[in-house]
Amino acid sequence: MEHSMSWDSLWMNVHLATMVDGYGEIRDAAIAVKDGRIAWLGAYVDLPNNYQANVIHDGQGAWLTPGFIDCHTHLVYAGNRSNEFEARLNGVAYEEIARQGGGIVSTVKATRLASEAQLISESLPRLRSSLGEGVTTIEIKSGYGLDTETEAKILRVARTLPKQFAVRVRTTFLGAHALPPEFAGRADDYINEVCERMLPAIAAENLADAVDVFCEKIGFTPAQTERVFQKAQSLGLPVKLHAEQLSDQGGAALTAKYQGLSADHLEYLSEEGIAAMRASGTVAVLLPGAFYFLRETKLPPIAGLRQAGVAMALASDCNPGTSPMTSLLLTMNMACTLFRFTPLEALQGVTTHAAKALGLAHEIGNLEIGKAADFALWKIMRPADLSYLIGINPHFLTVFSGQVRAF
Amino acid sequence: MEHSMSWDSLWMNVHLATMVDGYGEIRDAAIAVKDGRIAWLGAYVDLPNNYQANVIHDGQGAWLTPGFIDCHTHLVYAGNRSNEFEARLNGVAYEEIARQGGGIVSTVKATRLASEAQLISESLPRLRSSLGEGVTTIEIKSGYGLDTETEAKILRVARTLPKQFAVRVRTTFLGAHALPPEFAGRADDYINEVCERMLPAIAAENLADAVDVFCEKIGFTPAQTERVFQKAQSLGLPVKLHAEQLSDQGGAALTAKYQGLSADHLEYLSEEGIAAMRASGTVAVLLPGAFYFLRETKLPPIAGLRQAGVAMALASDCNPGTSPMTSLLLTMNMACTLFRFTPLEALQGVTTHAAKALGLAHEIGNLEIGKAADFALWKIMRPADLSYLIGINPHFLTVFSGQVRAF
Ligand SMILES: [Zn+2]
Ligand SMILES: [Zn+2]
Repeated sequence: MEHSMSWDSLWMNVHLATMVDGYGEIRDAAIAVKDGRIAWLGAYVDLPNNYQANVIHDGQGAWLTPGFIDCHTHLVYAGNRSNEFEARLNGVAYEEIARQGGGIVSTVKATRLASEAQLISESLPRLRSSLGEGVTTIEIKSGYGLDTETEAKILRVARTLPKQFAVRVRTTFLGAHALPPEFAGRADDYINEVCERMLPAIAAENLADAVDVFCEKIGFTPAQTERVFQKAQSLGLPVKLHAEQLSDQGGAALTAKYQGLSADHLEYLSEEGIAAMRASGTVAVLLPGAFYFLRETKLPPIAGLRQAGVAMALASDCNPGTSPMTSLLLTMNMACTLFRFTPLEALQGVTTHAAKALGLAHEIGNLEIGKAADFALWKIMRPADLSYLIGINPHFLTVFSGQVRAF
Repeated sequence: MEHSMSWDSLWMNVHLATMVDGYGEIRDAAIAVKDGRIAWLGAYVDLPNNYQANVIHDGQGAWLTPGFIDCHTHLVYAGNRSNEFEARLNGVAYEEIARQGGGIVSTVKATRLASEAQLISESLPRLRSSLGEGVTTIEIKSGYGLDTETEAKILRVARTLPKQFAVRVRTTFLGAHALPPEFAGRADDYINEVCERMLPAIAAENLADAVDVFCEKIGFTPAQTERVFQKAQSLGLPVKLHAEQLSDQGGAALTAKYQGLSADHLEYLSEEGIAAMRASGTVAVLLPGAFYFLRETKLPPIAGLRQAGVAMALASDCNPGTSPMTSLLLTMNMACTLFRFTPLEALQGVTTHAAKALGLAHEIGNLEIGKAADFALWKIMRPADLSYLIGINPHFLTVFSGQVRAF
């Protein structure tokens, strides 16, 4: 006995990279949507005879992938730091720039001063640029407020963006990003502030989906990190970490101990860190944009992660100090060029593995019946083009929750 | 006695980076156009009382620079090489790829097979991407035909593009790009073919504005290069060279000897080469995209070029094998990040110095009365943003020959 199939829309004349079981190519395919979710997909010739669709879209031979997911950004901030970028290239020493109020302090200052409306309008060009590359889900961290009021403002702005644009936003509280000037020399006091005042306030307003810390010699110690993790867990919030970017602090293992969603950066990740991540299922989020911008030469242990079967995600790390970029396509190319990712690993990195890094693997990241109907369509010869091209955007259109996105 | 000024259009509410005498910033400025050329420019408050303008445009506070110039591309070709890119990252050896007909041979094959219409349609996404970043002049080389018919076809296609898009195209004959399979083991015979048949045919049809050679161990020798240069000069065509990319062949000095417009790549450029370029006024065209893509570690001698006062231009080197990119903005960032250009040098590199590299300094490249009215307008805080941002395009609009460009 056959049920008649009734769909809201049907895409035909597409090739699918479903990303199910790694890749899951289906050429000359069709994919159907009902109530914002994938209702059917397969080869065009296998379409059921008795289907009904309210709308039929012609994919014009495009490749259709899951909507892209940028799982690590600091997209909402005010001002920029091109003046420092220029000063450094003109030979001004980093210390002199810091003395003049440069560095992260300048972004914190501008972000504290900005109204919510200003913060939105300064962040929109970055968001638009990201959406223009088929991004349907984006993570946005706080961390340029470093006081309760401004941290909440950043997260509130992030939560507002889906009202203006067809995009899913996941927010992360990163109060422990840097030591604010008011707490100079008193890092433990600031961690008290983060745990006892900021985090409870953020949680009470339901502003964060996760909690992050910058664990580094120039950031916070593993002990301070662990205090934040414990508080986060007591509030029911999952954790993640800026780990092993400049030195091995054992941050990845610490994150694994708390069943963290992801450990991010990882240039200095150890064998022990890999083993711990493997055991806990923590995702390795690699950020080649920051690696490139900082002219880092120490590569993250890609071969070790690959061998251990740790899921590797890619993200833009969009931020004004070390990765003033939004492009996931360029991130994919950098992962291939600089980290020797394969193009398939790069595509997994911005789809399935990025979904896992956000704890959303049940909902997005691949094309399966029942998952959200978030797609990106591309005018390319083959999926490897997405990693091969540099600064050329072959984006055709994006479907969010079953609807073609206009912006 | 005052003359009344009558203009076709006037742009106000802009900040100018005129690039005259190096930079030439004019804030709160206006710029006027008559007959496709710059008729007046200066601070808004200095506008003559008695001006008349048929159209007034509001620049909305944008920065206005000379239109960008990409002075070294191989933009017109068929197919792509993402399959090889993927194979290499999956561990297939270069020799195996070559055995399977990969490398430049595959692009030559596809380009020979393509009709002019196909060649145009395959090249348009690249051209559109370039134009979307404010490019108003682009150089396009042949070199994927390696026979008279196909080399002419590529150049004819390049000459056609300005009929569809508001852009200035300069063409370069690069018949001596690689040895075609038909001439395997007979490089001197091929150079004969280039000099005695191809070049005269190209010149007779007026298809090339300049002549280029790939002078390298894996390309052509200095002696073979010189034969092509001599023939080019006898036909009245200026020369330029792919020089010192992988080894020091003395190519830059050879180019200088023939008063070449530019020597390009230059990672292995010697002190002698710098001195020769200085004496002849030959421009150094640096191609950080290829440097990045090939993971080259030998930097071109930027400090030496800077000290000698050799003009340094930047270009995308858009090509399927070693720089599948079109973005001049990303090229600027790579020049700063990888080569330690200052943002000002990067901006000069895609304006004044690129104009000089094409022999067009009298016509384009900076904002002076009488020059072509080719502008790019940018929504940025300061010109350094153009080099600082990575994969974010702050382009607002482009003016070509005085007209706002739509495409
Ligand atoms: Zn980060
Ligand atoms: Zn080239």
